[in-house]
Amino acid sequence: MKKPDLDSFFDYVEAGHEMHKFISELYPICRSITGNGVRQTLSLIKKRIPLEIKEVPTGTKVFDWVVPKEWNISDAYVKDPKGKRIIDFKESNLHVVNYSVPVRKRVSLGELMEHLFSIPERPAWIPYRNSFYKEDWGFCVSHNQLLELSEEYYEVCIESSLEDGHLTYGEYYLRGDTDEEILISTHICHPSLCNDNLSGIAIAVSLAQHLSSVSRRYSYRFLFLPTTIGSITWLALNEARLSNIKHGLVLACLGDPGISTYKRSRRGDAEIDKVVEYVLKCSGRGYKILNFYPFGYDERQYCSPAFDLPVGCFMRTPNGQFPEYHTSADNLDFVQPGALADSMEKCVKIFDLLEDNVSYVNQNPKCEPQLGKRGLYQPLNRKSEPPLEQLAVLWVLNLADGDHSLLDIALQANVSFEEINRAAHTLLQAGLIK
Amino acid sequence: MKKPDLDSFFDYVEAGHEMHKFISELYPICRSITGNGVRQTLSLIKKRIPLEIKEVPTGTKVFDWVVPKEWNISDAYVKDPKGKRIIDFKESNLHVVNYSVPVRKRVSLGELMEHLFSIPERPAWIPYRNSFYKEDWGFCVSHNQLLELSEEYYEVCIESSLEDGHLTYGEYYLRGDTDEEILISTHICHPSLCNDNLSGIAIAVSLAQHLSSVSRRYSYRFLFLPTTIGSITWLALNEARLSNIKHGLVLACLGDPGISTYKRSRRGDAEIDKVVEYVLKCSGRGYKILNFYPFGYDERQYCSPAFDLPVGCFMRTPNGQFPEYHTSADNLDFVQPGALADSMEKCVKIFDLLEDNVSYVNQNPKCEPQLGKRGLYQPLNRKSEPPLEQLAVLWVLNLADGDHSLLDIALQANVSFEEINRAAHTLLQAGLIK
Amino acid sequence: MKKPDLDSFFDYVEAGHEMHKFISELYPICRSITGNGVRQTLSLIKKRIPLEIKEVPTGTKVFDWVVPKEWNISDAYVKDPKGKRIIDFKESNLHVVNYSVPVRKRVSLGELMEHLFSIPERPAWIPYRNSFYKEDWGFCVSHNQLLELSEEYYEVCIESSLEDGHLTYGEYYLRGDTDEEILISTHICHPSLCNDNLSGIAIAVSLAQHLSSVSRRYSYRFLFLPTTIGSITWLALNEARLSNIKHGLVLACLGDPGISTYKRSRRGDAEIDKVVEYVLKCSGRGYKILNFYPFGYDERQYCSPAFDLPVGCFMRTPNGQFPEYHTSADNLDFVQPGALADSMEKCVKIFDLLEDNVSYVNQNPKCEPQLGKRGLYQPLNRKSEPPLEQLAVLWVLNLADGDHSLLDIALQANVSFEEINRAAHTLLQAGLIK
Repeated sequence: MKKPDLDSFFDYVEAGHEMHKFISELYPICRSITGNGVRQTLSLIKKRIPLEIKEVPTGTKVFDWVVPKEWNISDAYVKDPKGKRIIDFKESNLHVVNYSVPVRKRVSLGELMEHLFSIPERPAWIPYRNSFYKEDWGFCVSHNQLLELSEEYYEVCIESSLEDGHLTYGEYYLRGDTDEEILISTHICHPSLCNDNLSGIAIAVSLAQHLSSVSRRYSYRFLFLPTTIGSITWLALNEARLSNIKHGLVLACLGDPGISTYKRSRRGDAEIDKVVEYVLKCSGRGYKILNFYPFGYDERQYCSPAFDLPVGCFMRTPNGQFPEYHTSADNLDFVQPGALADSMEKCVKIFDLLEDNVSYVNQNPKCEPQLGKRGLYQPLNRKSEPPLEQLAVLWVLNLADGDHSLLDIALQANVSFEEINRAAHTLLQAGLIK
Repeated sequence: MKKPDLDSFFDYVEAGHEMHKFISELYPICRSITGNGVRQTLSLIKKRIPLEIKEVPTGTKVFDWVVPKEWNISDAYVKDPKGKRIIDFKESNLHVVNYSVPVRKRVSLGELMEHLFSIPERPAWIPYRNSFYKEDWGFCVSHNQLLELSEEYYEVCIESSLEDGHLTYGEYYLRGDTDEEILISTHICHPSLCNDNLSGIAIAVSLAQHLSSVSRRYSYRFLFLPTTIGSITWLALNEARLSNIKHGLVLACLGDPGISTYKRSRRGDAEIDKVVEYVLKCSGRGYKILNFYPFGYDERQYCSPAFDLPVGCFMRTPNGQFPEYHTSADNLDFVQPGALADSMEKCVKIFDLLEDNVSYVNQNPKCEPQLGKRGLYQPLNRKSEPPLEQLAVLWVLNLADGDHSLLDIALQANVSFEEINRAAHTLLQAGLIK
Repeated sequence: MKKPDLDSFFDYVEAGHEMHKFISELYPICRSITGNGVRQTLSLIKKRIPLEIKEVPTGTKVFDWVVPKEWNISDAYVKDPKGKRIIDFKESNLHVVNYSVPVRKRVSLGELMEHLFSIPERPAWIPYRNSFYKEDWGFCVSHNQLLELSEEYYEVCIESSLEDGHLTYGEYYLRGDTDEEILISTHICHPSLCNDNLSGIAIAVSLAQHLSSVSRRYSYRFLFLPTTIGSITWLALNEARLSNIKHGLVLACLGDPGISTYKRSRRGDAEIDKVVEYVLKCSGRGYKILNFYPFGYDERQYCSPAFDLPVGCFMRTPNGQFPEYHTSADNLDFVQPGALADSMEKCVKIFDLLEDNVSYVNQNPKCEPQLGKRGLYQPLNRKSEPPLEQLAVLWVLNLADGDHSLLDIALQANVSFEEINRAAHTLLQAGLIK
């Protein structure tokens, strides 16, 4: 009973809808790289999986960085002279530049304009902006809103705080049969944006639920982190255990209607790279493979030269390459249950394959063992190729020298991994490989 | 006097006819993996080359296998109620399923049909079938014959014996200047089938005759074996001397009108692989190169993971890929003297090239030696490329560093092996390489 | 102030004219592999760069060779019965076969013809011929001249000497910050031929002038040698210091109107090979890359198997591939200031790039360093790719592991070397790489 709740296409469809519902719950929260928005998000995750929530104090040195002050916000607006809120944080948390310092003053239209951000080519959308490592304030508006501003003076107010506090992140360690672990990392620092990255959070949570219910050779570590500072903090605090990490994936932007994209680890030919490419190739749907590049999400930290971990990034359309990216249009309509279901199915297949991708050793490596006496042989007579089942057995026996994983054998034999894996199980039962 | 009897095209044509005649002699014998058919075959080979005939007793353990009982047959038939032999072993030994246990009884048509094999899509041909490792009996018939069966009862008789005895094989060791050896292996277990594998036997015998008459750097070991159990037995009994084997070829299906096919060794880039590919490329005729796969002929045993010997398989059309395969149509008309001649010529060239493919070391590796004072230099004046002869000399001098064989040099220089070999001899005589 | 005199396109145009003028000065001299023509040539070079002129006595053993007798010539002619000089060395030094022994006698037309060389398919051109290592004499004429010979007897006179003396070559060692050196070698043994190789001499001299005025990580060794025997002599006398040579170029045929050609070192993937290919690719003009072959110019000695130095050959049209090659048509019209300028510019870029192509090590290899606090970070917000400047910084940080040179990084990042180099300087100043 390997996949109790994900046996069929319909299970994935249902999982897609479940994930979309969870995204709806998380959507209104104003997240940032620190603060109560992150805590609320993690507590909603904790309702679904037994998450440990960690708090790292402001000022903690993490490699070249320092954990920043904690940011919180209760209200923000711009009022016209009549006292009408014409820009209102309560309508959309994107309206405030994330990490804005508190401000309350009367400003001229000219001064206000210097603190306003819009997207002229997408006049109905509000952009998302932050000012994480530079103290500043600002508002984001649709370009249509901006064009309507005509008064001489406005009242601006941001009721935020930037004070010593904590950086908060969530960690869920799912022990398997061995200490060798698979890292799954996703970022939780964006406010009301769905694809980037409530989709990654929803997939990670569903995966954790699923994996906790199946037998596991590997241990799994799920990290829910603010991007950059979060992964740097985690790496700094956990350096001693990095050698356990055998494979890893950063999950991001997994709910948009685009095709799946995999960005390779820095090594480029790690087992995770081969496995994801194989799963995507076998999916029968379009996909794209990218070589590693040192920008993007937290894979840039995991793949920094001193660590060089075998961690790739699994996405649909990459960040910055869909028009809705970092705008109010990355909303609940933009992420689709079907796309979430498809991403989820691929993730499940990736981890299934990693779990199964063992390197066996033939226990009778001198000549072929006699398959006939074990009921594993069908005489060929007039055909040149044995039936697929037996062919897979012969390939496994020939290449099971400890150097070839089952996926390596499948690729060299040009036989499906499934068939090769089945042959390996037959041979295991017969005591012919170990 | 390198090739006393194979100097010209006409010598090969003659050799092709000789081989075809030898195949005609061997054709009527009812061979199997053990028994007197094998002994008769080996004794006919022994008339041509000084073969050692080995007998390994039934029950001998050979790796995961055991030498089986010996099978012999004197007569077999199916008689109709009038006593007429309607299926008769004496007409074709293919009529009896090879290794059939003795039987003599009256059977209904229904029961008989369960023991009959035919090829509906080739109604005039008798198939070849065996039951080597499962005690059973049966008859093979043309489909036309099968359709004519209309009586209610028949008398079946197989006068065979399946008893403790021996597995018989032939070995011919041709000592050369060194202990390093080349293995040539061919299977002898098929009854009246010409291409598979009387063609392989005929080529191996001709090669042995030819090689015994020329000077040899390598020693050659010719094995005439029943397939699978024969090579497993030989490997089990000769494990200690395997390290002498530097190259090897399995010979099979070498007389049909198709193009030459070479199946690479498991290593894929062994010297034998490069040499055969080069000879086939230079032949100017069509050819096909296949990567190793773990089914086919005895290369699967030589290339099992514990041995991984550099042994490829040389064929024309591979087993199972010509319609006549394992049927009565694989007869004396199907194998052609011209095809045998062509296969033979390629084999001779392969072993010539292996013999010549030395790695020399330049004795004046600091700058070029002065070729002029040794009469090896022609001034260039207005040409950019030296004449071919001198160019070959320069390539050999530049790459004779012990790491490049002459074939490696020929391939890198894009100059024929012949020309490079000639240059190497010139340089050897001048004492410039060793 | 890296390139004081080669800052712009116009500087190179001017340099091209300068080089052409220098070629005009050198053109009339009758050079050979030894003798006063070589000395005159070297003394003209010495007026421009502080050359050391070396003299190696006849008879000196250099590896497999011996320094030959010195050849000098004062006059040579063929006179008709009326005493008229119909072939005259003073009109063109190509008229005498280079290294001709002295002769003075009356010869029949038949005997004369055995000592005459012409090019029937180019009837107006005089060929260049030599007889360096075989004592002989001869004259080269245009085919038109040859066809006019109709007298029965002629007087031939060659006033040459072939006596114990010296082999003369020039060496200029330009010390840089380290002992690691770049070898630049060019041949000086051809008489009145411009492209082959006064062009190489002119480029080498200009490069030496240029490099002496810029800061240099590497030391540079310029060799002006007679081909073959010159490089062999230098290698024999300097074997102990070869390990300092990190890169090298042979310069030849650099003034013809053809495209640039680079012949790789024997190693094929040396840094010099990658650098020249990159510079040629970036030039935006046509070019050709050739694999190493063991004939051509002195790279064949530097790349002989015992040395295998990373030395390639930089040319325009290779020797023997332009019709003017080794004829009187390889004259002052054939080499063009523009072609010389283009070759020079590429050489300057090659050595600039070698100088800059350092392998740095990231001093904060655990995660990314915080670029923001160093003023090196621009927030991305709505773009997926950072601006080029920052992207280059990220690539350098990610790949600066000591194994990747800046060119390796540029090629992997698909970002120009210039941009990567600029990023490396920014990071050096910030103390982030070393």
